[in-house]
Amino acid sequence: MLKITATPRIRRSPFHDAVVAAGVTDATVYNKMLMPTSYGDLEAEYRRLLEGVAMWDVSCQRQVQISGPHADDLVQYVTARDLSSMKVGQGKYVAMCDHEGVLLNDPILMKLSGGRYWFSIADSDVLLWCRAVAFERDFEVSITEPDVSPLAVQGPLAVDLIADLFGDHVRALKYFWFVETELDSIPLTLCRSGWSKQGGFELFLQDGSRGVELWDTVAAAGERYGVGPGAPNHIERVESGLLAWGGDNTPGSNPFECGLGRFVDVDCEADYIGKSALQKVAAEGPERLLVGLILEDAADSIADAWPLEQRTAVRVGECQVGTLSAVVESPRLGRTIGIAQIAREVVEAGATVIVESPQGARAAEITELPFI
Amino acid sequence: MLKITATPRIRRSPFHDAVVAAGVTDATVYNKMLMPTSYGDLEAEYRRLLEGVAMWDVSCQRQVQISGPHADDLVQYVTARDLSSMKVGQGKYVAMCDHEGVLLNDPILMKLSGGRYWFSIADSDVLLWCRAVAFERDFEVSITEPDVSPLAVQGPLAVDLIADLFGDHVRALKYFWFVETELDSIPLTLCRSGWSKQGGFELFLQDGSRGVELWDTVAAAGERYGVGPGAPNHIERVESGLLAWGGDNTPGSNPFECGLGRFVDVDCEADYIGKSALQKVAAEGPERLLVGLILEDAADSIADAWPLEQRTAVRVGECQVGTLSAVVESPRLGRTIGIAQIAREVVEAGATVIVESPQGARAAEITELPFI
Repeated sequence: MLKITATPRIRRSPFHDAVVAAGVTDATVYNKMLMPTSYGDLEAEYRRLLEGVAMWDVSCQRQVQISGPHADDLVQYVTARDLSSMKVGQGKYVAMCDHEGVLLNDPILMKLSGGRYWFSIADSDVLLWCRAVAFERDFEVSITEPDVSPLAVQGPLAVDLIADLFGDHVRALKYFWFVETELDSIPLTLCRSGWSKQGGFELFLQDGSRGVELWDTVAAAGERYGVGPGAPNHIERVESGLLAWGGDNTPGSNPFECGLGRFVDVDCEADYIGKSALQKVAAEGPERLLVGLILEDAADSIADAWPLEQRTAVRVGECQVGTLSAVVESPRLGRTIGIAQIAREVVEAGATVIVESPQGARAAEITELPFI
Repeated sequence: MLKITATPRIRRSPFHDAVVAAGVTDATVYNKMLMPTSYGDLEAEYRRLLEGVAMWDVSCQRQVQISGPHADDLVQYVTARDLSSMKVGQGKYVAMCDHEGVLLNDPILMKLSGGRYWFSIADSDVLLWCRAVAFERDFEVSITEPDVSPLAVQGPLAVDLIADLFGDHVRALKYFWFVETELDSIPLTLCRSGWSKQGGFELFLQDGSRGVELWDTVAAAGERYGVGPGAPNHIERVESGLLAWGGDNTPGSNPFECGLGRFVDVDCEADYIGKSALQKVAAEGPERLLVGLILEDAADSIADAWPLEQRTAVRVGECQVGTLSAVVESPRLGRTIGIAQIAREVVEAGATVIVESPQGARAAEITELPFI
């Protein structure tokens, strides 16, 4: 187990002191920011997410704000999805690709009032990408990272907790839609979203100096629901088939190879970066597919491999046909399951594949995502 | 102390198994890659670097390779330095800036044979930046991250160790110059470079499958010199005034505000991104300067603050005039010293400033970098 070296290069979350007080034990670095990953009891964190409500410091999910006269044009140009009917207050899960159709990021795009947008990003420098494109094409826009840090409230009881804090109108909020609001005069944007399939909200804190206050307010209101700290949950996300950007997608993957094909509009009227490359992939079919694997039962558990430290080879016979990027023991399925990117012909043939686990070779059956 | 969560999103170094065997205890994430930061005895690591020779896994210093018919043009266009006289086999420390002159990265640029270049980068997505610029301007280039991972050999005895391995010709290699070579048929590029002022080399391993073999070969050859593991050394780099990208430079800083003004050629004949903005800064003078601070002696040590976890306010009276990004007890100076970015007028006035240390306010004297 390696300890993380503290350095000003890796930014601290506005919720930092609160998550330390809550007993954070493990973390990662995401968008050059410290992200809590566990409070020392992964089973409890999983149960809380599935049955109750959990609070996650996901401030590392940074916002890239695009504003200015050409904001609409730039945002469409860097997004592989038709945005022509997008409304203020609406969010959309989108793929950003390079000129060859390679997936660069899978943010939630939020259309704010006042001609502003936020890309709520995964772990790559979207800000650099957008600035280079905007300057080189003379888009008149301002591209910044505002002081905005999401706090996720996730789980079946999240809606009750959030309704207690903000009012019953939040129950009617559609998925990925949001309202700009405040809580005890703390400015924030409340979005029905979050990186789980258990339902919930993200509170986009807009004043970094008030992170601990927001955390404590939510924690106090959640006491009656048994709220507790948590983090993006590895087991749940594998069961739910949520893409972990940078882990599941191998370098060079296009969105069709990452399970995001349904979010790509190749017939969109507007032009966007990568469109012709993606049209070609859509016509010919992707080379690889993101799939689930169900590993054969065995006396030995591979739970020690959790979380998988590196992508692991998946093969048919001696031939490598893909990579496994996550493997967990699923409490709900009672099976060992994983997420893999596998050659399309192997998936279509329904072949049984072999996973090179740290405990030796293990047969696995290919299945569609999500598992649940 | 937080433990780092292992995940395929954070890439493992080709030297990983060797550094684990060598007893690595602490790490950080740099360019989405695990970088060792300590082997548990920082004092010994410092002494080894100052008096002997140390081996550092700095594979996180990734290469962005630019090749193709327009490689010369693109590389110059993204670099704020005159490259017209650059030779094959030469490296240069360069500033990459955005269109407003903001420092994006401070890589070593290496001109390889065959019309290829490597930017050996600090912790930001230069690859995304270069791809966006190249595609939008129709440069005919290929931009990739090749399988190249540097192993640094640093310290006064490094040259003897490297000469034993590669021959006495390496003694004549000038700083930042390099040769493409091999060691026991392991392909690599040997450069006289490294992020210390103690002298040394970087071995750019070009076959990731042979990392442990290279590490072990160097370790065996270094035994007679007392070689041992280490990492970019925080104390030495503060004494030597080396910029820690992402830590010392606050967001929005231009190179003149990061101590890199002498590497910016504002009168360069070729155009490059940010040139006019940088010309303006050169003419008017930067708003801030990167300086050293010598903290007043005090009974209490602030060594506990090592390493500084966040940038800390520096003030004159009640007015914040800058930020401190590193503070160490210097064994060579016998003083507590730091690196800070301070408003130019304060620096020019030679004012005494106040540092808000975790142990309370402490007066500090401004001085030029490097300290030694």
